[in-house]
Amino acid sequence: MSKTVEFFFDFGSPAAYLAYSQLPRIAEQSGAELVWRPFLLGGVFQATGNRSPVEVPAKGAYMLADLARFAERYGVTYRHNPHFPINTLMLMRGAVALQMHQPDRFGPYVDAVFKAIWVDGRDMNDPSVVGAVLHEAGLDAGKVVALCGQQDVKDRLKAVTQEAVERGVFGAPTMFVAGRMYWGQDRLDFVREALSSN
Amino acid sequence: MSKTVEFFFDFGSPAAYLAYSQLPRIAEQSGAELVWRPFLLGGVFQATGNRSPVEVPAKGAYMLADLARFAERYGVTYRHNPHFPINTLMLMRGAVALQMHQPDRFGPYVDAVFKAIWVDGRDMNDPSVVGAVLHEAGLDAGKVVALCGQQDVKDRLKAVTQEAVERGVFGAPTMFVAGRMYWGQDRLDFVREALSSN
Repeated sequence: MSKTVEFFFDFGSPAAYLAYSQLPRIAEQSGAELVWRPFLLGGVFQATGNRSPVEVPAKGAYMLADLARFAERYGVTYRHNPHFPINTLMLMRGAVALQMHQPDRFGPYVDAVFKAIWVDGRDMNDPSVVGAVLHEAGLDAGKVVALCGQQDVKDRLKAVTQEAVERGVFGAPTMFVAGRMYWGQDRLDFVREALSSN
Repeated sequence: MSKTVEFFFDFGSPAAYLAYSQLPRIAEQSGAELVWRPFLLGGVFQATGNRSPVEVPAKGAYMLADLARFAERYGVTYRHNPHFPINTLMLMRGAVALQMHQPDRFGPYVDAVFKAIWVDGRDMNDPSVVGAVLHEAGLDAGKVVALCGQQDVKDRLKAVTQEAVERGVFGAPTMFVAGRMYWGQDRLDFVREALSSN
């Protein structure tokens, strides 16, 4: 039986970026389907009482070193974004919008936004920068913005975020395999094991 | 050149227990010296603004599953202690006391206390239970209690905790190798790598 791995992600999480850099290959190698679940981490923090690690200065400082170690292990480029933290409401709405209405554009959009934030260090709090990034990726920024204003898109993002909370999610990235939850890009080895077990 | 790995631990942390279950072998296999650094996690939480993951209910629930997965991977027994959280002030003073004044008793004490809490589920908030546990391990409980009342012991525990904060520690377990900090029993693979690199 073919398995699926659900991937709850928010572009604003550097750990979600690292998971994104590895998970498609893990899923492919396991013959599993990767189900993308864009959600709003800020909403989950609010609902669960969790908070960003950077709110504890010592933890935030360590986190940067830790993420850099994993990036080196994975062999991927990762630079901490100088504009962090990023308000990702519109970015996550954009992901949901394309997933719902232009699914063939979803992949390029996700690639462009993750790269802009965690490789190129761009200021994605600035709508004009977002527009430029999407344009450079061959996406129709005006169309994305228009879709983001649609009620069905806003509602879907809220619903996925609410579903995440109900299923026990408190941070990002979070993966589910066969009903089991795995939190953090540092649990991808467990995800891989879960996907290869019977 | 022979390396050392410093191990900052508090008996009250289940993740510190899992690290304790693996670290001596990792150090031995790497030809490294393991330096035990008993400290007070509560003091570090107070100084850094960090807090226990269990204070976020969803995170606490996940943590139990996560620790059980690692225990299974390591092949060690781990049961969540029904009396958690445990006030470890006296237990940590005991560790410091033996390290300072009866170093040959330090190992048996550490083994007995970790096992009582994370294998046998005993209530180490209760001084009479602590006394029984130490007695069963062949330790002189009265002597340990007397040492715990000494000012040099109290001062040492405070000093190590303060040192931890100054070096960037915000949780347990925390390991240092060659000036680099590693937080969490889930970073033992990085510790192993650091110990085997030149």
